[in-house]
Amino acid sequence: MTTSTQGDQFAVPKSMQAWVLDDPGQLRLTEKPVPQPGPAEVLVRIDAIAFCDGDIRIITKGPPALIQGGLPFNKNFTPGHEYVGRVVKVGPGVDEFAIGDRVAVEVHFGCGRCERCRSGMYTSCLNYGMNYGEHNKGHRANGFTTDGGFAEYAVNNVNTLVHVPDNIGDEEATLIVTAGTAMYALDTLGGLIAGQTLVVTGPGAIGLLTVAVGKALGADPVILTGTRDSRLELGRKLGADHLINVKSENPVDAVKRLTHGKGAHYVVECSGNPNGLNDGMDMVMRGGKICLVGFANEPVSVDVAKLVRNHISVFGIRGEGRSATHRAAALVGQRRFDAKLIHTHTFKMDEVPTAFKYSRERIDGAIKVVVKMRDA
Amino acid sequence: MTTSTQGDQFAVPKSMQAWVLDDPGQLRLTEKPVPQPGPAEVLVRIDAIAFCDGDIRIITKGPPALIQGGLPFNKNFTPGHEYVGRVVKVGPGVDEFAIGDRVAVEVHFGCGRCERCRSGMYTSCLNYGMNYGEHNKGHRANGFTTDGGFAEYAVNNVNTLVHVPDNIGDEEATLIVTAGTAMYALDTLGGLIAGQTLVVTGPGAIGLLTVAVGKALGADPVILTGTRDSRLELGRKLGADHLINVKSENPVDAVKRLTHGKGAHYVVECSGNPNGLNDGMDMVMRGGKICLVGFANEPVSVDVAKLVRNHISVFGIRGEGRSATHRAAALVGQRRFDAKLIHTHTFKMDEVPTAFKYSRERIDGAIKVVVKMRDA
Amino acid sequence: MTTSTQGDQFAVPKSMQAWVLDDPGQLRLTEKPVPQPGPAEVLVRIDAIAFCDGDIRIITKGPPALIQGGLPFNKNFTPGHEYVGRVVKVGPGVDEFAIGDRVAVEVHFGCGRCERCRSGMYTSCLNYGMNYGEHNKGHRANGFTTDGGFAEYAVNNVNTLVHVPDNIGDEEATLIVTAGTAMYALDTLGGLIAGQTLVVTGPGAIGLLTVAVGKALGADPVILTGTRDSRLELGRKLGADHLINVKSENPVDAVKRLTHGKGAHYVVECSGNPNGLNDGMDMVMRGGKICLVGFANEPVSVDVAKLVRNHISVFGIRGEGRSATHRAAALVGQRRFDAKLIHTHTFKMDEVPTAFKYSRERIDGAIKVVVKMRDA
Amino acid sequence: MTTSTQGDQFAVPKSMQAWVLDDPGQLRLTEKPVPQPGPAEVLVRIDAIAFCDGDIRIITKGPPALIQGGLPFNKNFTPGHEYVGRVVKVGPGVDEFAIGDRVAVEVHFGCGRCERCRSGMYTSCLNYGMNYGEHNKGHRANGFTTDGGFAEYAVNNVNTLVHVPDNIGDEEATLIVTAGTAMYALDTLGGLIAGQTLVVTGPGAIGLLTVAVGKALGADPVILTGTRDSRLELGRKLGADHLINVKSENPVDAVKRLTHGKGAHYVVECSGNPNGLNDGMDMVMRGGKICLVGFANEPVSVDVAKLVRNHISVFGIRGEGRSATHRAAALVGQRRFDAKLIHTHTFKMDEVPTAFKYSRERIDGAIKVVVKMRDA
Repeated sequence: MTTSTQGDQFAVPKSMQAWVLDDPGQLRLTEKPVPQPGPAEVLVRIDAIAFCDGDIRIITKGPPALIQGGLPFNKNFTPGHEYVGRVVKVGPGVDEFAIGDRVAVEVHFGCGRCERCRSGMYTSCLNYGMNYGEHNKGHRANGFTTDGGFAEYAVNNVNTLVHVPDNIGDEEATLIVTAGTAMYALDTLGGLIAGQTLVVTGPGAIGLLTVAVGKALGADPVILTGTRDSRLELGRKLGADHLINVKSENPVDAVKRLTHGKGAHYVVECSGNPNGLNDGMDMVMRGGKICLVGFANEPVSVDVAKLVRNHISVFGIRGEGRSATHRAAALVGQRRFDAKLIHTHTFKMDEVPTAFKYSRERIDGAIKVVVKMRDA
Repeated sequence: MTTSTQGDQFAVPKSMQAWVLDDPGQLRLTEKPVPQPGPAEVLVRIDAIAFCDGDIRIITKGPPALIQGGLPFNKNFTPGHEYVGRVVKVGPGVDEFAIGDRVAVEVHFGCGRCERCRSGMYTSCLNYGMNYGEHNKGHRANGFTTDGGFAEYAVNNVNTLVHVPDNIGDEEATLIVTAGTAMYALDTLGGLIAGQTLVVTGPGAIGLLTVAVGKALGADPVILTGTRDSRLELGRKLGADHLINVKSENPVDAVKRLTHGKGAHYVVECSGNPNGLNDGMDMVMRGGKICLVGFANEPVSVDVAKLVRNHISVFGIRGEGRSATHRAAALVGQRRFDAKLIHTHTFKMDEVPTAFKYSRERIDGAIKVVVKMRDA
Repeated sequence: MTTSTQGDQFAVPKSMQAWVLDDPGQLRLTEKPVPQPGPAEVLVRIDAIAFCDGDIRIITKGPPALIQGGLPFNKNFTPGHEYVGRVVKVGPGVDEFAIGDRVAVEVHFGCGRCERCRSGMYTSCLNYGMNYGEHNKGHRANGFTTDGGFAEYAVNNVNTLVHVPDNIGDEEATLIVTAGTAMYALDTLGGLIAGQTLVVTGPGAIGLLTVAVGKALGADPVILTGTRDSRLELGRKLGADHLINVKSENPVDAVKRLTHGKGAHYVVECSGNPNGLNDGMDMVMRGGKICLVGFANEPVSVDVAKLVRNHISVFGIRGEGRSATHRAAALVGQRRFDAKLIHTHTFKMDEVPTAFKYSRERIDGAIKVVVKMRDA
Repeated sequence: MTTSTQGDQFAVPKSMQAWVLDDPGQLRLTEKPVPQPGPAEVLVRIDAIAFCDGDIRIITKGPPALIQGGLPFNKNFTPGHEYVGRVVKVGPGVDEFAIGDRVAVEVHFGCGRCERCRSGMYTSCLNYGMNYGEHNKGHRANGFTTDGGFAEYAVNNVNTLVHVPDNIGDEEATLIVTAGTAMYALDTLGGLIAGQTLVVTGPGAIGLLTVAVGKALGADPVILTGTRDSRLELGRKLGADHLINVKSENPVDAVKRLTHGKGAHYVVECSGNPNGLNDGMDMVMRGGKICLVGFANEPVSVDVAKLVRNHISVFGIRGEGRSATHRAAALVGQRRFDAKLIHTHTFKMDEVPTAFKYSRERIDGAIKVVVKMRDA
């Protein structure tokens, strides 16, 4: 539990600075009213925020599912969802959080009234993409369908917040939600992976944290595939037992070799390579499971019968369901892996377009690019 | 429980008539020694056997997974797995069955020593396809990797047998294992499907029995797609609430219409159409599940990202795992649907090649073609 | 789908007749303002309502868990939760239901913000019993913690409503929520019970409907235990294969006999007999499962080590979680069993105290006592 | 993978020294023929073995379930199941292990033909306790129903063996199977416990390793209750965040305090205290889960209705199902906790009765008492 200190330090102004999305790829700093928390909501003062591949997609192309009202361009929309900050105001009836609490956020607040939300699957809410409003039944997704974190303040439902211990720095805390996605992938594959073989394809931020969370949960061995040795080496530091550079070795052959011909128990596909599913099908043993996290950007030819022949299950997932962010925060808080390793660059609030450029173009080996939204 | 009557009627000869596979597609009647049951095995006198699409594939192309020792042609191999008969001899230590018991069989007897078998997933046994022998650790699959039922007698492990009540005719009883596959598909999708939307694509024998089992378990509505009205009408008799002839209506549009735009909870793909996975992804709602039963005979272009975007799970399955055949036998015994509806033709033991031809070419509207292996 | 007809027939007055609870056991008819539906809520005009054992407990003793604010006596509280009616007004943003829709209700609307609700376990909401209010985060339970259905109108969250087809009478429709509890018990035991042995102890309304739902889902055999032959005979009509009158035969011995010494797969304890858990432990086979639905009214001596020795799981449940009421409504709509068999008496709105007396004292063999809240 | 070295060092004699059980509590050293491995079996040369509470129970009272043929006294029976050694001979068809491989064992080899074994629940095999023989269908449980490890050699099915890495000492390796029981308990509770509250009651060997495995899997916080501070302190070293000495604080109050009034997610009852279930019911939050591992030695009064009211699940378990020993071995091999901490005493092969006395009477603070079965 963090302590709450109410005082001038958490005074809330009427208006705030916020980045908004104009044309695709164009971010502009502007002034907006500070939003007010409703029932079951709090206002978060944002201290730091990271760029995720999802943000880059939204900023350049729009979100990956149909949004009621169309694309988010030139609508005064503020993107960003990987943020950490302090609770500065609580809505009516809120006692789960207090002013001064340090929190990270997860993306999805489900509508709470569709059958998916009712069954706990809030990241596949049937009302995703319906804009949030006073009486609207829409699912809220920070920085996807509602204003996000490239601003001084943001409103969040209490369901989307996790406490962040004081021993975790702001930059590291922005990675909790990314680790939450990794956790959700592993949960989807069965949760208890100790002593079983895990292949992670693609050493981006999610892939690297899947290695870290997978190793923390006892997967053995953890195998990471990728194209860049520097990224793969980070994977080793985060817990990968074996690294496969797909430029020098066929990854399917390598996995077979490392598993004594048996194949892996689990593959988490984080590369977004269209061929990822095909490779995964050849990497897993009979009865194996594949979780798809990366978005392949084009169709690919698939031998569907192989799924039948080898009794393979494939799970596409979105976000960080089943309270995975809470689990991830616990592992980060216990220092089970060093998430800071994937943080590469820090910028100031007025440098968001530069930060975006670094993240998008992977300038200077950028992985996680963080923006400090206020002076320390 | 059936009663056991030991006597001359179950006397076992030394040799038997059996059909064997010569070149692809060529079946020949020959004489073989009657096999002897070992520990945990019984000898079954075969009364009737049906052709399944899997048999046709084996007889013409070989089995759908690599077999140690290669293809089954010209090896004195007897195919056939959908059979019913009487226990006529029991191996050492067997008390689960007695002489005279009437039984149907399921295909897979797992090796019992790989990690899949240990966890109950015996139809994805890691030793599938390794020939069965005295000290061999191979998984046994009737008529796939070991001698099957187009013969007077066959040996079976007690694990693969289910009791058949006397009120079920031989022809109907051969369908229990087919219903077992349908049951396993629905079990894989979660098991409890009452009150949820089930789409079955492909009105072959498995598809039709998936309709029947799905309806028996309370799915509502059950939607069946296919190309032939006569088959679709059978589906209605077995429990389909809606029929879609894909020649006259786009099945994805039809499912959306019938589900008020929401999409289905579950799709069981039984058509083997390569595009079945693509259609399934468009038919299910967010968070939906697809079970692949049919073997697509060629690769197809798939938009893999759609699985991620819509949080879809896909399950390839083999056989009748998790004791599904026992469950199916219970439903057939309770007369919950009329499996006989899909039985179309009956032949005698010496007419197996003709029966094969009818089944393979769907002559005269053939669905389930049964061979009576002995005179009544 | 039901059709919506808006018109004078659904005009809503300002005030209504409602029964309220004075001292324990004392119900009084009074006048209350008609409540107004908020966001995600509708106003239901109540056509019929049944008494449940839970209502009797509340009216005489208060609800079975601590309620913030204490006991419900002399607080103008209206009990009752098994009701059916028509939607007559919808709150802001509601499009799931329209005026004129015929609906049954389930009891629990979770808070939506505790970790149980987030994971889909809304009937074990951690905020159960905290009164519902404008900004209150409390779980709402019709007739337990908030005003229920012994009134002309009641407000309900859309999550708690299921459509009722027109071919189901009002009396039968009041039983949908009872069947929902039965469905939830069977879901908790694994959901797919086809072909497995189910013992139901206690032929009260929930026990009898557990027999019915269990048989509809294919359990085989279904064994019912009880003390009164008339109730047991109703069980046979609803699907029980074997009846055990515990006055004439030890139920554990009988279950062993009927299962050839093996024991049952599942026991659903609906009798509330304190010894029910002990009997259940002796009835199930190794690895078996017991679901506790009835509330035992006093502690009992239990040989806890037996649970360990025989690898037994025990599940206490509340209410109708996992959308069980929707599943139950589908089975009732498909006429899979005749729920009307357990409806024994009908009273008028001004006869509620008499109806309560019949239900409580089981006068004239009363099982389900229904009150028609308006003239047809 | 360990390497195999075939040679004189693994030469197998005709006869061996073995301890056998005479009257209750009486162990005698004798000569026995070395058993021969059959199909799917290997012969293990035993290097070290530990005493478990289960052994003490068997040696003094017999096993905790009915054994065909009665009690094990004066039958030349060799107890003991927590052992580690080297494969010195392989049965026909075995290629999973080679001569020289270092292995630990788990207790249960299921019959492979009952419905529990078929579904992967081999520790609740329906044929448990039926003696093992040439054609017998009995479940084999090392040192419970068949000869165990207080001997120079023992035969084991390949299913029961796990490889032990060379960096683990013999004493520590004997604890792998104990950690396997802990792992199975946590698997039964859902497997993915990261970030959730785990209470372990009873700091015996299994309790302490449940703390260790629970912490390794990310449970947070882990709370351990017990009566002796020295044992509790060991718990802290193995990962407990909070220690409760039940002599100085009511454990239910303490858990409520430590969980801010909410209660714990999970309780693993390892104390065998008859009141353990009652305490557990009061420690868990609504919807919580309790796993019973300890054998309570007498009945206790239980308020069964509390399970219903608070939607609590209770799981009795036996042994180390679902390949938990493999998972545990992986965690031990990864040095995720220091299992050696609970090893307190070492004896030589001819000192077995003294070792038994130390273990049974907890002399000199004994926890795990290990016997080295051969000179190093």
